[in-house]
Formats: sequence, structure tokens, C-alpha cells
Amino acid sequence: MCVVVVGSVAYDGVETPHGRVDRMLGGACTYIALASSYFSDTKIVAVVGEDFAKEDEDLLASHGIDLEGLERLPGKTFFWEGVYSADMNDRTTLRTDLNVFADFKPKLPPTYREAAYLILGNIQPSLQTSVLQQMNGVRLAGGDTMNYWIKDYRDELLETIRAWDFLLINDSEARMLSGEHNLRRAAAKIFEMGPKTLVVKRGEYGAILFRGNTHFILPGYLLEEVFDPTGAGDCFAGGFIGYLAERGFDLKKGHIDAKELSRAVTYGSVMGSFCCEKFGVDRFRTLTRHEIDRRFDEFRAFTEF
Amino acid sequence: MCVVVVGSVAYDGVETPHGRVDRMLGGACTYIALASSYFSDTKIVAVVGEDFAKEDEDLLASHGIDLEGLERLPGKTFFWEGVYSADMNDRTTLRTDLNVFADFKPKLPPTYREAAYLILGNIQPSLQTSVLQQMNGVRLAGGDTMNYWIKDYRDELLETIRAWDFLLINDSEARMLSGEHNLRRAAAKIFEMGPKTLVVKRGEYGAILFRGNTHFILPGYLLEEVFDPTGAGDCFAGGFIGYLAERGFDLKKGHIDAKELSRAVTYGSVMGSFCCEKFGVDRFRTLTRHEIDRRFDEFRAFTEF
Repeated sequence: MCVVVVGSVAYDGVETPHGRVDRMLGGACTYIALASSYFSDTKIVAVVGEDFAKEDEDLLASHGIDLEGLERLPGKTFFWEGVYSADMNDRTTLRTDLNVFADFKPKLPPTYREAAYLILGNIQPSLQTSVLQQMNGVRLAGGDTMNYWIKDYRDELLETIRAWDFLLINDSEARMLSGEHNLRRAAAKIFEMGPKTLVVKRGEYGAILFRGNTHFILPGYLLEEVFDPTGAGDCFAGGFIGYLAERGFDLKKGHIDAKELSRAVTYGSVMGSFCCEKFGVDRFRTLTRHEIDRRFDEFRAFTEF
Repeated sequence: MCVVVVGSVAYDGVETPHGRVDRMLGGACTYIALASSYFSDTKIVAVVGEDFAKEDEDLLASHGIDLEGLERLPGKTFFWEGVYSADMNDRTTLRTDLNVFADFKPKLPPTYREAAYLILGNIQPSLQTSVLQQMNGVRLAGGDTMNYWIKDYRDELLETIRAWDFLLINDSEARMLSGEHNLRRAAAKIFEMGPKTLVVKRGEYGAILFRGNTHFILPGYLLEEVFDPTGAGDCFAGGFIGYLAERGFDLKKGHIDAKELSRAVTYGSVMGSFCCEKFGVDRFRTLTRHEIDRRFDEFRAFTEF
């Protein structure tokens, strides 16, 4: 089954304790799509400038990602620069040049509109809504957001997520959105806002999926070395939606196999963990589905008791 | 099988966002023993002053805890006072009066010396050593320590833990002791110091057990409300050792059932989670083994995929 991914395609400048890269392919849409592509046909909707390199387009194409919805506008591609703290749990943004992204008006090619799965990367809520409205009969739609939209665009955001099946955010965002510190109570509040499934990303501590009165908690993978956490959360999202699409999972159905959602969280964590092993998208140049499934089995081995 | 617990029996003054108690039963030995008592015969070695209340002794006795090794000295019982941060992930010590604890010289009653399981609460490393030396043919010995001993008594501590089967500390202590930020590498370094099993407590994020080249990760239980985290780490230790003693687990045997160690970590987490539900030791006034086993099953339900 097909996944449509909307979000930023960008160039990133990143500094971590392991080194520094001045300019490399990045952006939420890029990471989500690369991760999703290991599981399902993946189509992106994004905008880049004239400086977008052939080799970066080729990397996406080599993963079978449909680029028909990748618009190219006069000007430069979105650029983000940030530096990570010593333990890599915090990062500081040094520069954000929106460039062509400032005028992003997502337009779905007709071939995208019948896709069953939609994931909305972190962009302005009204743009997320406009994409969902262009889809016909989506089976499963949801996405990400961030503190900026929660704080300064709250009404617009609430209007947007009301139509989502799932919301996928980190723990501090879940607390900010709900006004509840306790995550169980935060989830209950967020359910009232629309999404009936909440995935809370906890960085190195893993993730929690809340649905109804139940939840699933997965600890994070213990990497020997975290080179660059940029994109890990988006890769999580890509693995999550990609796996559900591969399985043809339908959240709107009356009967839901909760274990499938848990396995989607696990595949999400697998993809996030691989992402951290090299700078930027580098790990996806060589990563294979076999490695992914092996790490999924590892997750089972170190969590079973 | 029998568990011997050594450590502090104290009075605590605690303030959390949920309230304040000026003086209540506390101390590492108290919490470890209460938790262990649900699984195995438990004997304590500790010291209290003349002010130690009959009702507190009765609480311990009502759990079948052997108090022959509870020495009573002229003077006052150890007193600790602390206040927790709003999210309860940090606490500040306001007062520490060692009182009779300053002269604690643990002496094991003869009936204790043949016990198969020993857990050493966080006290001066040389005292921990003196206790282990008084035991005959212990099957499984280990314990806890803290930043103070790691920093200022490093040689004494290294000498002490060299003889331990397991070390049970929190993540920041594991990093401090090993000099490694990455927990996998921290574990490898700590194995070289003696203990062949390392349990890293991560507070609300659960725990990791490292042994050989494998590890087991358990996420923390999501409580609706954390009233008072005091003693949760010690209750973890008590559930861990208590369960292993109940099963007659022998770390020194060639063949080890790793899943039993994982289940011990799970029972440890169960006990730590119950501890947080009320102030001080209050939850243990009513807690039953049935509730414990039910929560163990809950852990399985929310971690399986």
C-alpha cells in the first residue's frame, strides 16, 4: 500500500560531539520517506530550490520514492543549522533560512490522492489540513507537530489534528499540548482533541503508544555510539507508517490488532536507531531490510522476560 | 531461601509536590527489606536509636522480617530530610543527621551467616565488605552505592565491589563509576571491576540489566500519580533480590537462566512502582502479593509485541 509523506526537504548543517557537516540532505519529509520506503511505496510532497543537488534527488529515487510531488521553485532550498549538547539530548538551532519553503503550498498530484496512508511532517497546521483535504478515502492519517505550533498556533493546530487518526509527538510536546505532566493523563486529554492513537517519542528512552485504555511501552535501542540524532524522530514516524501500510492496517476498522500497532512502534524505533548511527541520511545509503528485521528481532530479545 | 539486608533504618522528612511529612519511617534497609519480604524470608542488619518507635518495629515484624540484627544504641535514629523538584526527578537534601548510624558496625547474628542471599544497601564500602566477610557460602551477593563513595572513596569502593556478583546503581552513578557516558561501554568497564551482572536503574524510565554480551531493558511503569519516589530504588533492589531468593537462583552456577534475571528486574520495577504510590512506606501497609503478581502481568501486557 502507498504512503504519502508531506514535510520539509532541506539542507542541514549539523555539529555533534562526533564531528561537523556544513551541508547535507535533511528535512522531516526526507527522513520519513527514506524510512518508510523500506516497507511501502512512498510518495513525497515537498518543495526544493534550484540548488537541490542531483545526487540527493538520486538517493531518494534509488529508494523507489515517488518524486512527482517534489516541486522545484526559483530560489534556495530550506536550510537549517544546529549544534548538539555533549550528551546529545539537547540541540540549539543556530540558523533557519526558510527560503523556498516559506511559500510552500502543497499540491498533490492526482496519482497521490487515492493513497491509503498519509503522514504529515511538522509544518504549519493549515498546510497539513490542506493536504488531508486533497486526499480521497485515506485509511490512516496523522502526523507530527512541534512546540512552536502548539504555543503560537494553538487554535489552528487543534482544528487540524481533530481530523487525524494518530498524533506522533515527543514527550515535552505531549505535555505542552495537553497541559498535563503525567503522560497517561496527557494521552486522555489528547484523545479528546481528535486522534484516537497517540505515539509519544521519548528520545533515547524509546516510545509509548496510547490507544483507548491501553498502552504499549518500548524502551530505546542501546547504541554503542550515537553519531547524529538528527532525523531520528522522523525516521521513527517513517518506520511506523511504512510498516502499517505494508500490513494494510486500517485504524478505521472496528476490530484493531493492537499488537500490529506495537510492532509498528518497534519498527519505528528500529529506523530511528539506525538513523543515529551515521551523520544525516548516510546510514540509509547502505541499510537493508534484512538488517532492519534483524534489529526488530533484537528488540524482542532484549525486552522479553 | 533467606535474604540478608544491610543498610540504614532511618526517619525521613520529605516534601513532594503532593505534600509533606515531617517524620516517617525510611532508610534503604527498611525499603529493601519490606520489598524483599513479599518473596523470601528477610533478615535485616541495621542500627536505630532509642527513639525508634514500637509501631515502626511492628510494621517490619508484621512482614515477617527478622529483626535479630537490628541493633538499638543510645542516641537518636538516623534522620534525613529532603525536598523534591516539581517533576520529582531531582531532590535536594536539606538535612542529614547520622546520629547512631555514625557508629554503625554491622554484626551478623550467627543465624544470619548461612543465608544464601545478601544485599548491601548504600553504606560506607568498608562496612559492606565487613558484612560479606561474615557470611558463609553466600550464593548471590551484591548491592548499591552512591556518588559520594564513587567520588571520595573510590579505592575502597573498588576493593569492595570486586567481590560482588551484582551491582545495582542508577545511570548517573554507572557513568561516574565507569567514566563512560554510553551505558553499554559503562557496563563493560564495570564488569572488569568485578560484578558480572550490572543493573542500571533509570528512575521513571525503568531499568537495564547487563550480563555478558546481552542485556535486558524494561521500561518504567506509568503511574497515574507519583506521590513520593523516596525508597523506590531500594524497593527495586528488594524485589530483585527477593524474587531471585524465592526462585533459589544461583549466579555462581555455570548455567544461568537469563530470563529469571529479567523477571527479577521486572519484580524490582513492580515494587518500585508501588512504593511511589503513597508517602514513605505507606503502600506496604496494605500491599498484597496478589497485587504484585497482577502488576507483573501488566508489565508483560504493555511490553509484549
